[in-house]
Amino acid sequence: MARIVKKFGGTSVGDVDRIRNVANRVARAVKEGHEVVVVVSAMSGVTNQLVAYCRDAAPLHDAREYDAVVAAGEQITSGLLAICLQELGVPARSFLGWQVPIKTNSVHGSARIEDIPTERLEACLKEGRVAVIAGFQGIGDDGRITTLGRGGSDTSAVAVAAAIKAERCDIYTDVDGVYTTDPRIVPRARKLDKISYEEMLEMASVGAKVLQTRSVALAMKHGVRTQVLSSFEDKPGTLIVGEDEIVEQEVISGIAYSRGEAKVTVVGLKDRPGQVSHLFGPLADANINVDMIVQSASDNGEATDVTFTIPEDDLLRAVKILKEHKDQLQYQDIQYNGEVTKVSVVGVGMRSHAGVARKMFDTLAEKGINIQVISTSEIKVSVIIDSEYTELAVRALHTAYGLDAPAASA
Amino acid sequence: MARIVKKFGGTSVGDVDRIRNVANRVARAVKEGHEVVVVVSAMSGVTNQLVAYCRDAAPLHDAREYDAVVAAGEQITSGLLAICLQELGVPARSFLGWQVPIKTNSVHGSARIEDIPTERLEACLKEGRVAVIAGFQGIGDDGRITTLGRGGSDTSAVAVAAAIKAERCDIYTDVDGVYTTDPRIVPRARKLDKISYEEMLEMASVGAKVLQTRSVALAMKHGVRTQVLSSFEDKPGTLIVGEDEIVEQEVISGIAYSRGEAKVTVVGLKDRPGQVSHLFGPLADANINVDMIVQSASDNGEATDVTFTIPEDDLLRAVKILKEHKDQLQYQDIQYNGEVTKVSVVGVGMRSHAGVARKMFDTLAEKGINIQVISTSEIKVSVIIDSEYTELAVRALHTAYGLDAPAASA
Repeated sequence: MARIVKKFGGTSVGDVDRIRNVANRVARAVKEGHEVVVVVSAMSGVTNQLVAYCRDAAPLHDAREYDAVVAAGEQITSGLLAICLQELGVPARSFLGWQVPIKTNSVHGSARIEDIPTERLEACLKEGRVAVIAGFQGIGDDGRITTLGRGGSDTSAVAVAAAIKAERCDIYTDVDGVYTTDPRIVPRARKLDKISYEEMLEMASVGAKVLQTRSVALAMKHGVRTQVLSSFEDKPGTLIVGEDEIVEQEVISGIAYSRGEAKVTVVGLKDRPGQVSHLFGPLADANINVDMIVQSASDNGEATDVTFTIPEDDLLRAVKILKEHKDQLQYQDIQYNGEVTKVSVVGVGMRSHAGVARKMFDTLAEKGINIQVISTSEIKVSVIIDSEYTELAVRALHTAYGLDAPAASA
Repeated sequence: MARIVKKFGGTSVGDVDRIRNVANRVARAVKEGHEVVVVVSAMSGVTNQLVAYCRDAAPLHDAREYDAVVAAGEQITSGLLAICLQELGVPARSFLGWQVPIKTNSVHGSARIEDIPTERLEACLKEGRVAVIAGFQGIGDDGRITTLGRGGSDTSAVAVAAAIKAERCDIYTDVDGVYTTDPRIVPRARKLDKISYEEMLEMASVGAKVLQTRSVALAMKHGVRTQVLSSFEDKPGTLIVGEDEIVEQEVISGIAYSRGEAKVTVVGLKDRPGQVSHLFGPLADANINVDMIVQSASDNGEATDVTFTIPEDDLLRAVKILKEHKDQLQYQDIQYNGEVTKVSVVGVGMRSHAGVARKMFDTLAEKGINIQVISTSEIKVSVIIDSEYTELAVRALHTAYGLDAPAASA
């Protein structure tokens, strides 16, 4: 008997029939003798609808109210899954974020989990009941509903798995594992059996869309063995584990991309000590994550251009903040572009192999793709390109690094 | 400066544009210097969708999970209205049932409000903010979300008005007041300027659909002056007040009907002391409201037929309960029909006028409408008829009691 957390994403619970399928899958695990806690997302489309309502109500809206609105999505799914489980004779009850409670800070819209007292969950499991937790949501120290940001249900699941010391966290999704790249763009992408936390972190943060970055970081921190697998098929997925568990290491594990990026250039920033912290301090205060940063050498030592990338969703807010600080920063102009994509090659093997970045630049140049920003880390190389070239770039890199699966035999 | 509770129903908040209209109306009241608390329903269609999900998940489902699912509807509206108010520069915040808190018993699906501590609402008003409360929902003593039953937002509004000692409770809806009958059936129905609590209670309980019964009873108990008015037009509605405030009293104030009725006949019930309480006890325990009851004289003193009506929504549950108690009750058969309508003539004036019931029976007989069950109270006469005859009966009675408005002049 194992204690397992199972998380089901939006398409896995897209309608009542699919929720019933999820209930069947959970019931099987219960019948095998496992203790099961389930974390659910909103039914697919529901969160987008609720976000659209908020934006329609006001483009810049109170994040506390946004949280109250969008948290309704997961609330609905958790109740429906509990009903479906009971209908199968499996005792179950739903838990909303504030009922567990999933305690978070009060940074509404992108709250961080601070503590998950386990008394109520343990009591539920002890009674032989499945706990069905509404993902993505918690309660802030202001007593109001918080949400963890898009994809936050993965974080909920891993955090709960760590809190109740689960043996594994299964993340069921509409893909059957982690691929060398997005199979919708590259049909010959291959499924990986295992991937290290570190690589997954890069794949997720650059937009592999399979798991939210924070959930992978959390899994790594607490050593939660996490499996990504399909909710529609019955076969093993991709296991995310420590690097030491992976025997044969490829140089490059995958090509990731993220369309939800925006590039901002602050032109003619007065070049004096402390300017960069004056620039990024207010953005950090507003919880806007600045990703890549490039500073151009200044011509005359008096003014400089700083280019950085942020999530596209934060672009309007960021520009507003920078304009508010114009007097203090003394820049000439702000230029921004929400139509850029970040493309990355990722692999722990590049630590011991030279020439990885060069191959990337050569491949993109051959296809006539202009590189706007570059950044590198120990296990990845990322570039910002015009969004129009996304598919072309990903396909070319996938082939260049030898990741294409063998052609199907005739 | 007055303290006013304003409640907006489903069609009044049917989409974001309508929610913005509601915000404008609330903003005007705030600018006039009033302290305003708003209670909102779910956007029209949302509750039905959520109820359909629950039924699809399991026809007989856990009411605690049902409550968690359907309460999401009002949650969404409350957050969106707070956002729209803020966008107009009116400070506002949303309150969910558990945040106020609206304390209820734990009869999930049809909970009763037990207490509304006002500290948090008073603090909100003191800060000059509009409190936007999600109607229809509360928190049970089991710490889980409860709902008050369909139309429960009216009850939420009146209960809040009583708790914070509001001067008036305005119920905004898709009709502009209480009519002598449903204008969709009788185009010449007239709007009433005032109606007594007692009459409104009968109009609501027999299905005038304007205000939920419990909300009127609550208004009467606490003397809350309650106005029903249109959220789409700017004109006075119908004021619901004490009988003494109404000067000129018509014999009959209106004709009401309710389609959501079911008739159950328990055939061949063993006729012995205590049988009726054995019959209705389990239904009461399950919170099923039995309305009209008729017992046929038994032929031989050994068996009797009992006919009663209940809300159609409870029919399946009621039949299940009666079948479970068959051994104890020793009846021969259960017959039931969910296709019946209750039609009532209502008026405090009938206390001093004879012949009101007779006119009703004559009118229905003339139209060939069979009366299945009859019940009377001091200020109303109700009959159960086949649903097919609903419109015919209502129109005939409206004319017979002289309620038709004068024909429009050409």
